[in-house]
Amino acid sequence: MTTMKAMVYYGENDIRFEDRPIPQIIDPTDAVIRVTKTTICGTDLGIWKGKNPEIQEEAKKKTGKFDGRILGHEGIGIVEEVGSAVKNVKKGDRVIISCVSRCGTCENCQKQLYAHCRNGGGWIMGYMIDGAHAEYVRTPFADTSLYPLPEGLNEDIAVFLSDVLPTSHEIGVRYGDVKPGDSIAIVGTGPIGMGCLLTSQFYSPAQIIAVDMDDNRLALAKELGATHTINSGKEDAIARILEITEGRGVDCAIEAVGAEATWNICQNVVKEGGHIANVGVHGKPVNFELQKLWIKNLTITTGLVNTNTTGMLLKTCCSGKLPLERLASHHFKFAEFEKAYDVFKHAADENAMKVIIDLA
Amino acid sequence: MTTMKAMVYYGENDIRFEDRPIPQIIDPTDAVIRVTKTTICGTDLGIWKGKNPEIQEEAKKKTGKFDGRILGHEGIGIVEEVGSAVKNVKKGDRVIISCVSRCGTCENCQKQLYAHCRNGGGWIMGYMIDGAHAEYVRTPFADTSLYPLPEGLNEDIAVFLSDVLPTSHEIGVRYGDVKPGDSIAIVGTGPIGMGCLLTSQFYSPAQIIAVDMDDNRLALAKELGATHTINSGKEDAIARILEITEGRGVDCAIEAVGAEATWNICQNVVKEGGHIANVGVHGKPVNFELQKLWIKNLTITTGLVNTNTTGMLLKTCCSGKLPLERLASHHFKFAEFEKAYDVFKHAADENAMKVIIDLA
Amino acid sequence: MTTMKAMVYYGENDIRFEDRPIPQIIDPTDAVIRVTKTTICGTDLGIWKGKNPEIQEEAKKKTGKFDGRILGHEGIGIVEEVGSAVKNVKKGDRVIISCVSRCGTCENCQKQLYAHCRNGGGWIMGYMIDGAHAEYVRTPFADTSLYPLPEGLNEDIAVFLSDVLPTSHEIGVRYGDVKPGDSIAIVGTGPIGMGCLLTSQFYSPAQIIAVDMDDNRLALAKELGATHTINSGKEDAIARILEITEGRGVDCAIEAVGAEATWNICQNVVKEGGHIANVGVHGKPVNFELQKLWIKNLTITTGLVNTNTTGMLLKTCCSGKLPLERLASHHFKFAEFEKAYDVFKHAADENAMKVIIDLA
Amino acid sequence: MTTMKAMVYYGENDIRFEDRPIPQIIDPTDAVIRVTKTTICGTDLGIWKGKNPEIQEEAKKKTGKFDGRILGHEGIGIVEEVGSAVKNVKKGDRVIISCVSRCGTCENCQKQLYAHCRNGGGWIMGYMIDGAHAEYVRTPFADTSLYPLPEGLNEDIAVFLSDVLPTSHEIGVRYGDVKPGDSIAIVGTGPIGMGCLLTSQFYSPAQIIAVDMDDNRLALAKELGATHTINSGKEDAIARILEITEGRGVDCAIEAVGAEATWNICQNVVKEGGHIANVGVHGKPVNFELQKLWIKNLTITTGLVNTNTTGMLLKTCCSGKLPLERLASHHFKFAEFEKAYDVFKHAADENAMKVIIDLA
Repeated sequence: MTTMKAMVYYGENDIRFEDRPIPQIIDPTDAVIRVTKTTICGTDLGIWKGKNPEIQEEAKKKTGKFDGRILGHEGIGIVEEVGSAVKNVKKGDRVIISCVSRCGTCENCQKQLYAHCRNGGGWIMGYMIDGAHAEYVRTPFADTSLYPLPEGLNEDIAVFLSDVLPTSHEIGVRYGDVKPGDSIAIVGTGPIGMGCLLTSQFYSPAQIIAVDMDDNRLALAKELGATHTINSGKEDAIARILEITEGRGVDCAIEAVGAEATWNICQNVVKEGGHIANVGVHGKPVNFELQKLWIKNLTITTGLVNTNTTGMLLKTCCSGKLPLERLASHHFKFAEFEKAYDVFKHAADENAMKVIIDLA
Repeated sequence: MTTMKAMVYYGENDIRFEDRPIPQIIDPTDAVIRVTKTTICGTDLGIWKGKNPEIQEEAKKKTGKFDGRILGHEGIGIVEEVGSAVKNVKKGDRVIISCVSRCGTCENCQKQLYAHCRNGGGWIMGYMIDGAHAEYVRTPFADTSLYPLPEGLNEDIAVFLSDVLPTSHEIGVRYGDVKPGDSIAIVGTGPIGMGCLLTSQFYSPAQIIAVDMDDNRLALAKELGATHTINSGKEDAIARILEITEGRGVDCAIEAVGAEATWNICQNVVKEGGHIANVGVHGKPVNFELQKLWIKNLTITTGLVNTNTTGMLLKTCCSGKLPLERLASHHFKFAEFEKAYDVFKHAADENAMKVIIDLA
Repeated sequence: MTTMKAMVYYGENDIRFEDRPIPQIIDPTDAVIRVTKTTICGTDLGIWKGKNPEIQEEAKKKTGKFDGRILGHEGIGIVEEVGSAVKNVKKGDRVIISCVSRCGTCENCQKQLYAHCRNGGGWIMGYMIDGAHAEYVRTPFADTSLYPLPEGLNEDIAVFLSDVLPTSHEIGVRYGDVKPGDSIAIVGTGPIGMGCLLTSQFYSPAQIIAVDMDDNRLALAKELGATHTINSGKEDAIARILEITEGRGVDCAIEAVGAEATWNICQNVVKEGGHIANVGVHGKPVNFELQKLWIKNLTITTGLVNTNTTGMLLKTCCSGKLPLERLASHHFKFAEFEKAYDVFKHAADENAMKVIIDLA
Repeated sequence: MTTMKAMVYYGENDIRFEDRPIPQIIDPTDAVIRVTKTTICGTDLGIWKGKNPEIQEEAKKKTGKFDGRILGHEGIGIVEEVGSAVKNVKKGDRVIISCVSRCGTCENCQKQLYAHCRNGGGWIMGYMIDGAHAEYVRTPFADTSLYPLPEGLNEDIAVFLSDVLPTSHEIGVRYGDVKPGDSIAIVGTGPIGMGCLLTSQFYSPAQIIAVDMDDNRLALAKELGATHTINSGKEDAIARILEITEGRGVDCAIEAVGAEATWNICQNVVKEGGHIANVGVHGKPVNFELQKLWIKNLTITTGLVNTNTTGMLLKTCCSGKLPLERLASHHFKFAEFEKAYDVFKHAADENAMKVIIDLA
């Protein structure tokens, strides 16, 4: 058998579930993984919708042509083969595939800024190289991209350790400096916002205010630990957050959408000395009210996940205190991959959060 | 003698050098200081130009009238009288007057966020109460607003410890996380930018790029430690900074002006994982290019000085390694106070940095 | 009425429940509190046993005589009277009395090192001045020593915010840098160790190993969140901890006793890069195995509580996630104060943790 | 040519300058470097003196025999050959050889605790594998063990970036949290203490007190930036440090010897809230005066260098502000290697600091 099924991106609004060659080891630091579970990220939808034309452009620049790109950067699986320089994993190991890989040696990797590895690492899987929405995937820098899957860890949670939990935790919760007793607002309760809601609880904030326009999501947020919810389509979110916090504002506002309206809520509800952690992917500039905020001793952060807390999260998740598995709203068989994409594309209608695709 | 001379603000473009009653102790935590040296801040100019109508508004709200406000929040002097609850200073002590005072007990003071003291502290001197551009000044919360002036410290430097050095150090250099080996850009080389240039050197950055439109200031910046200078009126500052940093950008960009153009330089020259420390006072919102910056793992900070590093700076300044006294470009006698304001108002023409007024 | 009942220390093994004058305001920053609940600390027992002869010595040095000292530095109550410089509280307010007060202005207070206030603050109540084991207590620096008691907070928990929870949290958990996913060992499960066990859970460690020689305490530790317990009188604690952590050792070991044997467990079970947080009060030097530990990149901390997280803990406690009230093992009426001391002195036999004395 | 000269350790007091085979690539991540400059570390002397019998023991455990070990873990050179997985360097590159290498993927490497790499990295060169006191050396994990040598950097300083400067900076200065304005004591002014003296100045402490028993070293310390020097053989170092600091003690004491007497100075001169950074390699336990120190809110650190600031130091050193090259007291030709060892062994008599061996 030399071919496999995969979800392949060809251009704006053109993805196809089709046969592709099974990937092979190229560099001695590579591994090939047989995927057993994967999931779809908002970024995959963005590519599908044509937001990342650099995929084709870069391919053509390098090789003169673009033959399609297998999507997906999340999942777990079993090591099928490893390159000669791989030390940490071997054929047969069950592993979590991290969305970010790294050389470990460049200026940025020396700072644990793996998202910006300058030697071909960072987020490349399902983007600049073929990804995990397939039966097999090649992972570069295997020693730093794969984590042994511990016995007894719920496998859906393991899939969320590829991207959604590290992203939420690092770029939302840790950059936002969430501390015991804090009041925080999470603006947007899609998978990333919900991941922030869950992982923030590792640090015991006193108030967690979830903001969204979808009542189903807000109801789930409440179940997963939100102390207050606000439907910003029906209420003035800024006024409500100030009311809940007795006029003081929150210690940390997490932007988990990537739009001016949600950014605007964040910059108007943070108290002096507070944090705005931007996790959302923005397509346009925003208005930054420095005429009001210059004086407020704020810290505003942005970023792509470095996965430098994946190991720590893995241990925390194993202790099983939080209902992280509830991020999985739907399960599909591998043959239903197109349906999974369709459901996730219409997440609000489908009441979807994360959709899991089971290959095993 | 019950009156003294003082610079009094009455409204937009209306300040007067006139007789005023010598201030008295009001609260048991007050002190009255005989001022021996003071200086003028850009903020004083801003009040003069009418940027802070809240001064009159608040006065009228509280008392129904506005009788003028003595400006100034920087200086050194000799303690003339202390209230019954003051423990740390006594009549005759030589002291540095801090621009920020604090209750020390509120939510914000508990976080060392003294700029935002919720019990009547913060920056109030020469703003919400009478200030130091006078022969005498009443300082509230005297125990936390006054620092004993060490023997042997240059008295001009002591004056700079009231505001310009703590502001530069805290909001520019420390919020900007300047570290040994860093490349930093300081955009604007007025007194605050120059203070950043000086205090950044406490942390040994490898490259300090000073940007301004005034060649005189840039020449001074070079003398005070800038490794590179850029006249942004003559050169493309963004392009030059990227060239100097071999395309990488700086680790930290300090905005020391308060304008969209200088903010814009900052947001375009910071490398991944870097910092933008906004020190400038802005009058308008700015365009924040989140569509490019969301991915860059940046930290952006704003703020008003907390003076929580004044004690530390005092020790550092006493060790005498940096030519901090060179911030003083002009000296005036007290009788020349109006002239001092005039020179500082036309700082570029007069080649002025900080102007010192000597009363002793 | 000018007298009240109080527990007074006269010297080694000599404490008396007797009439004393009701305290009055001395300094303008003082308050007098009518105590409604208090508790006994191990330190009070230590004074009783004669470990702090400096109490008499200092008194004689200052006044030539020693008339006894009212013990106690924990409790809640109602403000009876305030000095002229007190701003934050007024007669009738319900407050938590902090064991540490501070001037807020000295070198150490500027660093939030309030335990070492150089102007008469720090821990002085029930030590260098009369304390809270009485119907009334005078609190110096009232604005920084009293916290408004929030509606709805369990009053026993409020009492624990005077000392045991801030000490456990600051000197154990925060100095020990407890993080999500960590393995930690708490050596000693008296009130402080149990406070560490509880407050560590604000940071979601994965493994909490409680060590003691008292099976009753270990059983309670298990109920309050310990994942493993070890009776070091019956098992080799070092070997067991290494076994539980698969030979790796813990990220943080908290010494909560103050003895060489417990220190020794700590220094032998911490993995490379880990922390030893010493909270215990030691009477003798210990053997520090630097010949083994110089290479391990350890951080070892010591300290007295600064109460700089009391405000934060207050908010966290109000959110009600942890069974903090279970630290209270016994309740006594004020008239039974001597019995309360007796029970706490024989804590192991009495199965006592914290004993609460109710005055209201 | 297949052989080279090298300094080889055979056992206690037995090192020989003799012919050895030129090393070859073994793993795909290896490189072979032609050494152009190297130096001798106190650790090399320790091995020679028999302090590390584990060298023979481990060799015999693995292979049944011990054929000698080439010493040395510092130097610069030219890349001769690289393994198939090496990406960052190529034949002909001029490089700095780091004393620590790392897998970059294990639990400890994920925490930047490279000294304790669990996959065969850490400090192994000239210890568990052959080292750099030879014409050629094999470096494992070449991508993380080699740093491109910048044009214009003094080559002696470059050699010090292998070990002595990173060790001093990380384990002394950074673990000791040296800050602007601090008072620090450096106890021991051998190469490591002198490295601490130099690199501490990147952070602008106000007082640097150097302690040693050798007046020549103290004289050099003064030239290199010490504000005070104390000959602890002639004066009571503890009393003098307290006198210099007006009874307060230092913010940071750096132990740079590894003996009880010097540890004892450190633990007696640190003020409340201060740091003791132990850099010295100890052969015996020390007495730790917890009965006095439990209350002082101290932080005590230990450790082996992680070389996670080497990149940062490289940039700082290139800016040329400090006379780092003065650490080199002697230069020898490669043929004089035995003489270099002999001089360094009698460092006090020879007035030696670092001895440089030039091969080029």
